[in-house]
Amino acid sequence: MATEAHFSGVIAPVLTPFDEEGGPDAARFTDHASWLLAEGCTALAPFGTTSEANSLGIEERMELLEELVDSGIDPGKLMPGTGTCSLADTIALTEHAIEVGCGGVLMLPPFYYKGPSEDGLFRYFAEVIECIGDDRLKVYLYHIPPVAQVGFSLPLIGRLLKEFPNTVAGLKDSSGDWSNTAAILAEYPQLEVFPGSEIFLLDGLKHGAKGCISATCNVSANAIRKVYDSWQTPDAERLQAGITALRKAIQAYPMIPALKAVIAHYRGDPGWAAVRPPFMPLPAAEAEKAVRTLAEAHGFTLDFADAA
Amino acid sequence: MATEAHFSGVIAPVLTPFDEEGGPDAARFTDHASWLLAEGCTALAPFGTTSEANSLGIEERMELLEELVDSGIDPGKLMPGTGTCSLADTIALTEHAIEVGCGGVLMLPPFYYKGPSEDGLFRYFAEVIECIGDDRLKVYLYHIPPVAQVGFSLPLIGRLLKEFPNTVAGLKDSSGDWSNTAAILAEYPQLEVFPGSEIFLLDGLKHGAKGCISATCNVSANAIRKVYDSWQTPDAERLQAGITALRKAIQAYPMIPALKAVIAHYRGDPGWAAVRPPFMPLPAAEAEKAVRTLAEAHGFTLDFADAA
Repeated sequence: MATEAHFSGVIAPVLTPFDEEGGPDAARFTDHASWLLAEGCTALAPFGTTSEANSLGIEERMELLEELVDSGIDPGKLMPGTGTCSLADTIALTEHAIEVGCGGVLMLPPFYYKGPSEDGLFRYFAEVIECIGDDRLKVYLYHIPPVAQVGFSLPLIGRLLKEFPNTVAGLKDSSGDWSNTAAILAEYPQLEVFPGSEIFLLDGLKHGAKGCISATCNVSANAIRKVYDSWQTPDAERLQAGITALRKAIQAYPMIPALKAVIAHYRGDPGWAAVRPPFMPLPAAEAEKAVRTLAEAHGFTLDFADAA
Repeated sequence: MATEAHFSGVIAPVLTPFDEEGGPDAARFTDHASWLLAEGCTALAPFGTTSEANSLGIEERMELLEELVDSGIDPGKLMPGTGTCSLADTIALTEHAIEVGCGGVLMLPPFYYKGPSEDGLFRYFAEVIECIGDDRLKVYLYHIPPVAQVGFSLPLIGRLLKEFPNTVAGLKDSSGDWSNTAAILAEYPQLEVFPGSEIFLLDGLKHGAKGCISATCNVSANAIRKVYDSWQTPDAERLQAGITALRKAIQAYPMIPALKAVIAHYRGDPGWAAVRPPFMPLPAAEAEKAVRTLAEAHGFTLDFADAA
C-alpha cells in the first residue's frame, strides 16, 4: 500500500523572529505564519534550516509549534523540522509533532558524526520510526548536504521506502543539484519530492515534483504560487524566469539575515531583523542595498496591509 | 587576573554504554567512570565526541551527569561536554553542569550552520557566557574541525580570552594538526591546552600543554598516565612510542565501536559493545581481530578485577 499524498505546492520554512532578550517571539512568529498562508503558501515547514531551528532549544521548538496551532493554523498544513543529531531529541520532537496533529515532519539525518555508513543511517531512521510506532507519522527526508554534510543516497532512500512504505512520504532536496532531484523523481515516483529552491520549481513539476519548500517563500510566496498554479500554461516559463531572477538576487546576500532584513523593512519593524548567533544581522547599509536592489531590479515589494 | 588552572593530566571522554532497549546504561556508565579514575585518569570529560554525546538527548545528558555525581565522583574532576548547535540547549546544559559542581565544561561551537563568521561565533560564546553570568563557569573550547566542521581560529581564541579572561580557561585541540596545537600554546600560554590525542602528549607537555583529553584513555589510561608522570625522565620517549603505537593500532578501526568492543571483550559483557545509530557495532570478526592485534602486537590487556 502506497503512502497517501499529503503535501503539495508552495511551502515556507517559516523564519523565526526573536524578541529583545533574544528569545523566540511567538507573536511575530504566528503573525508571519498566518501572513504566509494568506500570501499563497499551501503549507508551512517551521523549524527548517532557514528557521534557525538548529539554534533553537528542544523546549523552544515545542512551545513555538504549540503557539502556531493555538493561533488557529490547521496542524495538517504543518511539516515541522524534527531532525536533530540526537536519536532521543528527534524522537521527542517527532512525537510532539504527531501529538499536536502535524501532517508530516521534515527530518534531517543525524548530522554531527561525519561519514556515517548507509547501514548506520538506515538503522537510525528505523529506530526513530519503530520507537514512535504511530501510523500517523509521515516522514519527509531532509537532504541538505551543503549544510548537514550527511545526506541521503539513492540506495538509502530506496531501503527506507521499501521498509517503511506507509511512513516515508517524501523528501526535500536542498542539494542544489538538479540532477540529483531528477534522479530521485525518476527512481522513486511514489515519493513526494520538493526541491529546496524555487529555481527548480517548473522543471520539478514537469518531472513529478509536488512543489517546492524554499527559504525565499518567506518573502515571495505570492510569485512562486503563480508559477505553481500556472505551470501547464504558456505563461509558465516567463513567470519561472521572474522567480529565478528574484531568488538569485536574494541569495547574493546571506540568506537568513537578508530575508529578515527585508521583512523588517516592509513591516517597519526593525526588531524583525534579529538573528541568533552564530548568525549576524545584515549591516544597515547592506540591508538597505538589498531592499533597494530587489525593488528596482525586480519590482519587489511586500504588503502587510492585511496582516494583523 | 588570569584564570586559575583547574585541569591537568590524563582525561577520558567517557564512553556511554547503552542498555538492551537502547537507553543510556547508568550503572555501566558510573562503573566505567570509577574504573577510569582508578586506572589513572586525573579527570573525566563525559559527553565528548567519543561519548556519542551528540546522539544523546538533552535530558539523557543531564540525568547521566547526575548519576556520575551521585555515584560519588568528585564533580570538580568533571569537564562535561555541553556544547550543542543550539544556544538555548548549550546554556541549559552548561547551567546544569555548574549547578552539580563540575570543575569546567568542554564546549563545542555551534556546528550546524557552516562557515559562520568570526563575529558570529564570538557573539555566540559571549551570549552563552553573559547569559549564564556565573563566576564558577570555566569554559574549555572544543576544537574538532574534522567532525564539527566549525572550529576556533587563533584570532577568535584571542578575542574570547581577552573578553572573558576569568571564564575561558582552556582548549581541547582535536584538529590532529600538531602545528595548530603548537601555535595555540605559543600564542596563549595562559590557556590550559589539551591535545585531543595522546600521540601529541609528550610534545605537548614540552611546549606547555597540561595533558591530553583522548578517546583511547577509555582503555589505555594507565599507559598514558605513565608518560604524563615521567615526561621529564629519560624513559619518556620510549613510553611515548608505546602509547603512540597503541593509539595507531586502535584508530585503524572505527574508534567508538572499537573501544566498546575491546571493553566488552575484557569485561566479558557483550552488551558493552552497543552503540547508538548512526554508529554500527564492529562486526564480530573485526572485534576479535582488534582484540587479538592489540594483545599480540602491543601486549595490550585490560584488568577489571578491581572494578565493581
